[in-house]
Amino acid sequence: MPSQKVNIDRVFHALGDPTRRAIVEKLSQGPISVSRLAEPLDVTLAAVVQHLQVLEESGLVQTEKVGRVRTCSLEPGGLSVAEKWIDDRRSTWERRLDRLGDLLAELE
Amino acid sequence: MPSQKVNIDRVFHALGDPTRRAIVEKLSQGPISVSRLAEPLDVTLAAVVQHLQVLEESGLVQTEKVGRVRTCSLEPGGLSVAEKWIDDRRSTWERRLDRLGDLLAELE
Repeated sequence: MPSQKVNIDRVFHALGDPTRRAIVEKLSQGPISVSRLAEPLDVTLAAVVQHLQVLEESGLVQTEKVGRVRTCSLEPGGLSVAEKWIDDRRSTWERRLDRLGDLLAELE
Repeated sequence: MPSQKVNIDRVFHALGDPTRRAIVEKLSQGPISVSRLAEPLDVTLAAVVQHLQVLEESGLVQTEKVGRVRTCSLEPGGLSVAEKWIDDRRSTWERRLDRLGDLLAELE
């Protein structure tokens, strides 16, 4: 269970930005400190912190400060909620195509 | 292949709104006219048209006008692109957990 409540509006909104997707991509490989996360990204540390806040509020990411180091990690529950929503829509669409296929076969 | 170019930033942004998700959900059941699409939604027709424009620009939906009736349909390619992106991240995350599990097993 994710430690934060996942908000599907905020999850999709958060994933609509290429820098935030790059952050999620990096965090899928494991937890990392904010400063190391920012290194390869072509944005300021302040911008990374802002993006992390959006990701944290969506429930996709959590951060924890130990001493002077803030570490970020992925909360996979957020991704699962988004994936399930898409998958449910695709299933409905595919069932409809199957029914159309059956109907065409009957007409032939 | 979708007839419009799918823009992953715009797909996720488009899905970040509950009314637009309700539209995608309805269209997954089949094509429908704009006016019938708007009926059950608790927003003005003008708002639905604006949401449809965002969905069309993202590549999730296409609309076609025949006579005076504009019909909307789902472009499932847009959903597939978003689902694939999420699934790739989840796979990376799960492989990492598997490696951690192997490491713990070795340590025991």
